[in-house]
Amino acid sequence: MTMNVLGYAAHSPTDALAPFHFERREPRANDVVIEILYCGVCHSDLHTARNDWQNTTYPVVPGHEIIGRVVSAGAAATRFKVGDQVGVGCMVDSCQHCAACEQGLEQYCEAFPILTYNSVDPHDQMTTFGGYSQKIVVSDQFVLKVPDGLDLAGAAPLLCAGITTWSPLRHWKVGKGSRVAVIGLGGLGHMALKLAKALQAEVTLFSRSPGKEADARRLGADHIVISTDAEQMEAANNRFDLIIDTVPYIHDLNPYLPSLALNGTLVLVGYLGDLDPMLNTIPLIMGRKSVAGSLIGGIAETQEMLDFCGQHGITSDIEVITIQAINEAYERMLKSDVKYRFVIDMVSLQAA
Amino acid sequence: MTMNVLGYAAHSPTDALAPFHFERREPRANDVVIEILYCGVCHSDLHTARNDWQNTTYPVVPGHEIIGRVVSAGAAATRFKVGDQVGVGCMVDSCQHCAACEQGLEQYCEAFPILTYNSVDPHDQMTTFGGYSQKIVVSDQFVLKVPDGLDLAGAAPLLCAGITTWSPLRHWKVGKGSRVAVIGLGGLGHMALKLAKALQAEVTLFSRSPGKEADARRLGADHIVISTDAEQMEAANNRFDLIIDTVPYIHDLNPYLPSLALNGTLVLVGYLGDLDPMLNTIPLIMGRKSVAGSLIGGIAETQEMLDFCGQHGITSDIEVITIQAINEAYERMLKSDVKYRFVIDMVSLQAA
Ligand SMILES: [Zn+2]
Ligand SMILES: [Zn+2]
Ligand SMILES: [Zn+2]
Ligand SMILES: [Zn+2]
Repeated sequence: MTMNVLGYAAHSPTDALAPFHFERREPRANDVVIEILYCGVCHSDLHTARNDWQNTTYPVVPGHEIIGRVVSAGAAATRFKVGDQVGVGCMVDSCQHCAACEQGLEQYCEAFPILTYNSVDPHDQMTTFGGYSQKIVVSDQFVLKVPDGLDLAGAAPLLCAGITTWSPLRHWKVGKGSRVAVIGLGGLGHMALKLAKALQAEVTLFSRSPGKEADARRLGADHIVISTDAEQMEAANNRFDLIIDTVPYIHDLNPYLPSLALNGTLVLVGYLGDLDPMLNTIPLIMGRKSVAGSLIGGIAETQEMLDFCGQHGITSDIEVITIQAINEAYERMLKSDVKYRFVIDMVSLQAA
Repeated sequence: MTMNVLGYAAHSPTDALAPFHFERREPRANDVVIEILYCGVCHSDLHTARNDWQNTTYPVVPGHEIIGRVVSAGAAATRFKVGDQVGVGCMVDSCQHCAACEQGLEQYCEAFPILTYNSVDPHDQMTTFGGYSQKIVVSDQFVLKVPDGLDLAGAAPLLCAGITTWSPLRHWKVGKGSRVAVIGLGGLGHMALKLAKALQAEVTLFSRSPGKEADARRLGADHIVISTDAEQMEAANNRFDLIIDTVPYIHDLNPYLPSLALNGTLVLVGYLGDLDPMLNTIPLIMGRKSVAGSLIGGIAETQEMLDFCGQHGITSDIEVITIQAINEAYERMLKSDVKYRFVIDMVSLQAA
């Protein structure tokens, strides 16, 4: 039997999000039913609610930084039991048999992963609805265990902002002795600082203005390079093994390339679009440098990241809001007025 | 005592190359004096002769694909003896103590390597002159041994075209089971096909026109993808671990990115400049793909490549010319009218 669930949805690009009742699927044998406790607020939520990527099916219930508690588990979902604290991130399914899925890199599934919201479930053709809601039904393979001892609200953003920065740190083998720089100090950037530091890298924040220095150091930065200061940029030449570029809007990469060390990589995790101004190949060729992209992370590495955060006591810096404050929170996000992630306390939904 | 040497030089961007007498330095204890037998003709020679990169000091003697025979070796140049057949490539010195040099990657020397021509030797402030000449004096660390059994004229282009394609093949760990594609079938491209094939990769040539198929297959391509054929390009999606882009002029990379496999890299070895049209980041992010650059290769890997070519009987496909034909050869190179490299038989210089 399907279950009727209350959530918050946008019904058009210009509507405010508002209460919305919808059906969750009848749980399958391998499904876990999760009561949602917290849901982080990602820029993707806002972009999708407002159809910024021209691919939104309305109504849409955003939310893919989900923390909750298991309320039932199917007969085949043996890894989970009632009461477990669990997480769900950006994906709820994938083809499971392509080259990417076979490597545990479901985010790169050649058939495209089924996203937590605004996708169509290939099993029943139902639109997926995200975490701004009471409950969610998810195949057990896409449910993460949340380690004991982590603040549950602060853990929510690990499911998107955390894994999006963790995955490149691990893929490019960051550890003791690595020199990592982060561009942008928002939801992604502040997680990148924390995770890189916990991996024992030497961590630098590129910032356009000096005002962020104290906060950056508190979050894990060993150094700050003011990117508008030519002397500081020059001094950073040939320095970084990995630059994680979290900037979500169009920006010039060329000033950062000289600061990559030999064989270094600048990895884009926030910006989808054309590189304008044009990328110049000379710094790439003159130091075997790369510009790469990276998308969230696979399920196995998301679990690895959560376990690592459990061991190191790492969560996101958050501001807890009620679901009723979501539209105002979107406006503040647009002004980068949040340190560093909004998380919805889903108890507030009971008052809706 | 310095030695007077005959070569061919350009005296201005518009002058034809012509006979030119100049001094080689007095050999140092670690120097090898080489009688030049053959010199390959690289696009860089032409660009430098004509000051296309606005950095030419005249007169300039081009040539950095040098094959010769040792005529004397200094007391400290113990690896070499009179009569050895040797090669000299694009570099004749480097700082020897930066992070790059310490890894044997002298081409990325942080102080910039001393190039075989159009550089200034930091020891004596003399301009370096290249291989379009009778003899060259080179520090033994930058002299390569040429394996017995290789055709000496055909081996000359290994010193630039060969190593430029070998280095990325090795850096990105191409071997049995790798899928490699090559863009552009010129001096670099034809070497990339041969070397990738000998490394047991599955090799594909991207070509804009079907006419090159027979030649590409002879050189090592298992497949040809006509890049103007949308169906063939679509069929190549997610296929290549490494694409070696040898195209020396501005061109659009975006059509090739979907054909990279998950974690694949497109490496530019021929084009220095802005990526116009702009690179789009979506295919990079959606498959953790990279765009990288690579410059020639280090001395140790150049020796490795020569030894590999010796074992596999690999040389360049060449057209041997006299030094008197160099200006005509440049004109033909501009029209890509060469299969696939001109090599100067330096005996012809005696007639100058
Ligand atoms: Zn997100
Ligand atoms: Zn898949
Ligand atoms: Zn060359
Ligand atoms: Zn050096």
